[in-house]
Amino acid sequence: MTKKPFGVNLTLLPSLNPPDYAAYARVIAEEGVKIVETAGHNPGPIIAQLKKANIVILHKCTTIRHAKSAIKLGVDFLSIDGFECAGHVGEHDLTSFILLGRARQELTVPFIASGGFAEGRGLAAALALGAEGINMGTRFLCTAESPIHQKIKEAIVHAQETDTALVMRRWRNTSRYFANTVTEAVLKIEKESPSGEFSEIAPFVNGQRGRQVFLNGDIHHGVS
Amino acid sequence: MTKKPFGVNLTLLPSLNPPDYAAYARVIAEEGVKIVETAGHNPGPIIAQLKKANIVILHKCTTIRHAKSAIKLGVDFLSIDGFECAGHVGEHDLTSFILLGRARQELTVPFIASGGFAEGRGLAAALALGAEGINMGTRFLCTAESPIHQKIKEAIVHAQETDTALVMRRWRNTSRYFANTVTEAVLKIEKESPSGEFSEIAPFVNGQRGRQVFLNGDIHHGVS
Repeated sequence: MTKKPFGVNLTLLPSLNPPDYAAYARVIAEEGVKIVETAGHNPGPIIAQLKKANIVILHKCTTIRHAKSAIKLGVDFLSIDGFECAGHVGEHDLTSFILLGRARQELTVPFIASGGFAEGRGLAAALALGAEGINMGTRFLCTAESPIHQKIKEAIVHAQETDTALVMRRWRNTSRYFANTVTEAVLKIEKESPSGEFSEIAPFVNGQRGRQVFLNGDIHHGVS
Repeated sequence: MTKKPFGVNLTLLPSLNPPDYAAYARVIAEEGVKIVETAGHNPGPIIAQLKKANIVILHKCTTIRHAKSAIKLGVDFLSIDGFECAGHVGEHDLTSFILLGRARQELTVPFIASGGFAEGRGLAAALALGAEGINMGTRFLCTAESPIHQKIKEAIVHAQETDTALVMRRWRNTSRYFANTVTEAVLKIEKESPSGEFSEIAPFVNGQRGRQVFLNGDIHHGVS
């Protein structure tokens, strides 16, 4: 899609069969990628590997405590993700207004703001609170250049502020998705399952189904 | 405390023995109060009564839907309370970044922002998002002029962004308080009680104990 430099995201999630993250990092370095966004659990080894290859690292955090740990691990700057963000919101429900203000007081590296941004006024607010910039993702999904299904673009544009759902809190992996019949099913299991086995919801929240949503245009096919 | 004009807050909460709100409103009008902040359930009759007395009304909302209803009831301006606010946060967990942006798009009266403000940068951010101003409460509790116990002022100043707790979600009356042994006790009942009777937690969350906190300086005496 571009001949210009681009960054790569590497999100380290708890998994039954963890991907070979070290191999991902090796390929990223070999291909000459200059900037990587890391996120998730135990990023230390991957950050060390990427820093050895002189890659600039942006690490994503939902708490000040994690942000401070990431600074110690050598990241160059941070993405501060408020509770309004899509995907993993963390377990502390700290909003951008609170987190950005605290980040400015506590952090020793620059940071950008992530989650809930869709326009210039949001950028201005984030700058006022001390951020150097913002992440904006979902809105770009709706551009003419974006290759996702037209029906999904329309669903995003017509969505209300109440059209997201938080799932997987029970497993301390709380995530914000577009609210649909799949998030309803997950929340029902999450609330009612006596065992609380993650395997009961795994078929609903796997990334394959979520990815299909963008291709087949069916907002109820998976979580995304 | 002042000879200058002041406003009065009238919060209409579900209650086993509801106060005589109409009498409150009558006294407010008789005493010449010029501005009232209303909040809570079914404010229509009280708003009508206050408007008859030519009182300016600021109504507090945690959703755009409630804000629109309040405009129809004749309120003059709105307080848009994000999920970061103290006290009643609503049941939709909408953060200030999201709500203020939507308020600017949808509302036909001016609004101020409430919840999570403690400094000028937060004000600047709220203005950037479309608010006309902010509510700031907790920080003023810590001023030299504030008559609350010194230990409570110190507890607020030393508190971290993670030191609040959300209680009473089970009863759709979700409230944010300073996290202490009382909120822990409430959350335990909330999670474990088979009956879910509100009376089980009522002794912990009543306003009398909360008020005592400010007077006796014991942060574990009640919720506040």
